[in-house]
Amino acid sequence: MTETLVTVPRELIADTIARVLARVNAITSGGPGWTRPSYSPLESAAHAVIEEEARALGCEIRRDAAGNMFATLPGQDRGATALHIGSHLDTVSQGGAYDGQAGVVGALAVIAALRAEGVTPATDVVLTVTRAEESVWFPVSYAGSRAGLGRLTPQEFDAKRSDTGRTLAEHMRDEGFDPDAVRSIEPPAPARFLEFHIEQGPVLDDAGEPYAIVDAVRGGLRYREAQVHGVWAHSGGAPRGARADAVVAMAELILAMDAVWARLLDAGHDLTVTFGKLDAASPQHAMAKVPGHAGFCLDLRSDDVAVLEEADAALKAEIARIEAARPGIRFELGAQSRSAPARLSETMAEFVATGARAQGDSPRRMLSGGGHDAAAFGAAGWDSVMVFIRNWNGSHCPEEAMDEADLARAVGAVFLGIVAERGR
Amino acid sequence: MTETLVTVPRELIADTIARVLARVNAITSGGPGWTRPSYSPLESAAHAVIEEEARALGCEIRRDAAGNMFATLPGQDRGATALHIGSHLDTVSQGGAYDGQAGVVGALAVIAALRAEGVTPATDVVLTVTRAEESVWFPVSYAGSRAGLGRLTPQEFDAKRSDTGRTLAEHMRDEGFDPDAVRSIEPPAPARFLEFHIEQGPVLDDAGEPYAIVDAVRGGLRYREAQVHGVWAHSGGAPRGARADAVVAMAELILAMDAVWARLLDAGHDLTVTFGKLDAASPQHAMAKVPGHAGFCLDLRSDDVAVLEEADAALKAEIARIEAARPGIRFELGAQSRSAPARLSETMAEFVATGARAQGDSPRRMLSGGGHDAAAFGAAGWDSVMVFIRNWNGSHCPEEAMDEADLARAVGAVFLGIVAERGR
Repeated sequence: MTETLVTVPRELIADTIARVLARVNAITSGGPGWTRPSYSPLESAAHAVIEEEARALGCEIRRDAAGNMFATLPGQDRGATALHIGSHLDTVSQGGAYDGQAGVVGALAVIAALRAEGVTPATDVVLTVTRAEESVWFPVSYAGSRAGLGRLTPQEFDAKRSDTGRTLAEHMRDEGFDPDAVRSIEPPAPARFLEFHIEQGPVLDDAGEPYAIVDAVRGGLRYREAQVHGVWAHSGGAPRGARADAVVAMAELILAMDAVWARLLDAGHDLTVTFGKLDAASPQHAMAKVPGHAGFCLDLRSDDVAVLEEADAALKAEIARIEAARPGIRFELGAQSRSAPARLSETMAEFVATGARAQGDSPRRMLSGGGHDAAAFGAAGWDSVMVFIRNWNGSHCPEEAMDEADLARAVGAVFLGIVAERGR
Repeated sequence: MTETLVTVPRELIADTIARVLARVNAITSGGPGWTRPSYSPLESAAHAVIEEEARALGCEIRRDAAGNMFATLPGQDRGATALHIGSHLDTVSQGGAYDGQAGVVGALAVIAALRAEGVTPATDVVLTVTRAEESVWFPVSYAGSRAGLGRLTPQEFDAKRSDTGRTLAEHMRDEGFDPDAVRSIEPPAPARFLEFHIEQGPVLDDAGEPYAIVDAVRGGLRYREAQVHGVWAHSGGAPRGARADAVVAMAELILAMDAVWARLLDAGHDLTVTFGKLDAASPQHAMAKVPGHAGFCLDLRSDDVAVLEEADAALKAEIARIEAARPGIRFELGAQSRSAPARLSETMAEFVATGARAQGDSPRRMLSGGGHDAAAFGAAGWDSVMVFIRNWNGSHCPEEAMDEADLARAVGAVFLGIVAERGR
């Protein structure tokens, strides 16, 4: 059989994507949007759907101690470096229909296409379904994949889930995994990792391009439980000069950091600055009260650690300036968490580009703003790459939208990359 | 009996204040602070405590259809215009130990002092305990006193309590009062109303003065359920120029209105501007999401309706400016509510000043920033006045502090005012 005899089974790919996405998204704690917390029974149920689908394709199923699932389609050389393709099935609270699940379903569609066309790949192709990627639940970056890679720190096992207050170790145990076994996971030998994922940004949609190859992932510097303290007072009774209004101080910090962001972009740096939560709505807050407190989180991202440091230093300088100008105001940033920027694999980028060319596409190279499991695999020495799918209506929200045909096109490229590799 | 033979029973006044405040504040739904919602069983229980205390002093007890309580110490001339003294017993959520209750307990102490000294006042003295003064529960100004004065609008009976979502009429019925009877209350003949209340501001504390006479109450213009809509996006994926961040837009509005406030103060106007609640912490909000929504309330207060109008116009201009500069951002102010500024009674101010002089005090005249039942009685044609008690540590919060000795001093002044009136 020569390469030219293999065609991309486009209809099968489209059907697999539509059918399995619907099956996974039927599992949610309720709307709006989709909610499957990390290490929850809902995440486990979604894993079970994929396991069933992969078994039906004849894959060998394996789980590591942390509950990451591996469904293997054997290759011609079982000893060669395997190609893992996958993503995660947990979501943020009230998240979208594609973040994570599109990557898993895309991987499944690649395997379905290989099976349907009778293609035995050069190496094992391993559908890889990680756990606990969304760090809104546990304040740990890529908890599931890093657990499986033997790279969680002892402290991270004690991280508490934001909704339950119980630890990562406890939730692992709830889902049937032994945290002590996870603690002693032997890091697996580095292999290859490919992740389909929606872009979570407007670049591809604005450019009218269905998919792209991602060769770097931004790192992050975060304050998840920051606070500003002021002085509670009566809204009608406290004169302007006597106030220490936590919300006004917060507004000043937000606009100051927005200006810092503009300045660093103008200097040619890569950066995002986001105050994703601002909570001045506790039972203690009221229309007739000058706010004495607000909680907030701040997320800084860049492809350059030095820029993150510079933004963090600017943050602390702005806080000092605001505190000095506003007696009674005191900021408490709380614990800082970080994820390192990751450069992905040029070899893997070329692998995807080869398959894309075979179907007449020339996807651009771009940067990922969001952190992804591919970064965790990359940090562990794997040859990693991502394939971004055009999306719109935001991300991490119920409105998050993607055209399944775009994912199918990207699946076709990876399918043809595997075919080409076999042909070499 | 001549006037000079009457002495102020200072110990009895102090004891009454301490004992009855403690009894009332034992009634709360739990800490921090004190919570007795408007038209709740907790407010009714606090009313029952005062009824028991007033009965023990031999007062005649009466309630109007809306549940406001009147405990009368008969005067020499039962037909003369009565002197009502009182305040409310509901609190904001997690409020303080003095707002409202200090006024009720002060009124009770006046009557206890009159009884103890065997003073029969010139007119009836009526301890007046209103309902539902704190408009954080029902978006209605002075709901209880205005109900009793026959001044609630039909729509206001349908206002929903912020915690239960049930209407004012339903909550009245729950506490044993018939809303239909309230709808047909005949406005009582205007009498005189005096209200002790903590200042809820720093003026007296800064000046080292225990109490003051309030001759005007600021009015308010409020948006209780305002919102700003933006576009949800991924914090790492959405470039700066492509964002419609609801929290950044909100920060811009807060600082813009702070500047408007400074400008109007510089122009010599009276105004307060407070964003008391800012809610960008729903389940949909997350560290890794650009906020697509925030809720807020805005409270504008002034002694001058024209200044409220000017601030409201500036608010709308700032919103238009921000919306024009930030595509995707849209503000929705929602329903506006108002309370009118009230000028209080010069005759009643002089009544208090006379009693104060009799004990060697010369309290200042001042403005009230907060709205109070006295404003509702004033608007209904009563001769109303307030006596502000120095306080600190804010107001409408658990830390709200007052020296009971300051209230006792003010009670002494009113006691001596009554004695002087009898002597005329």
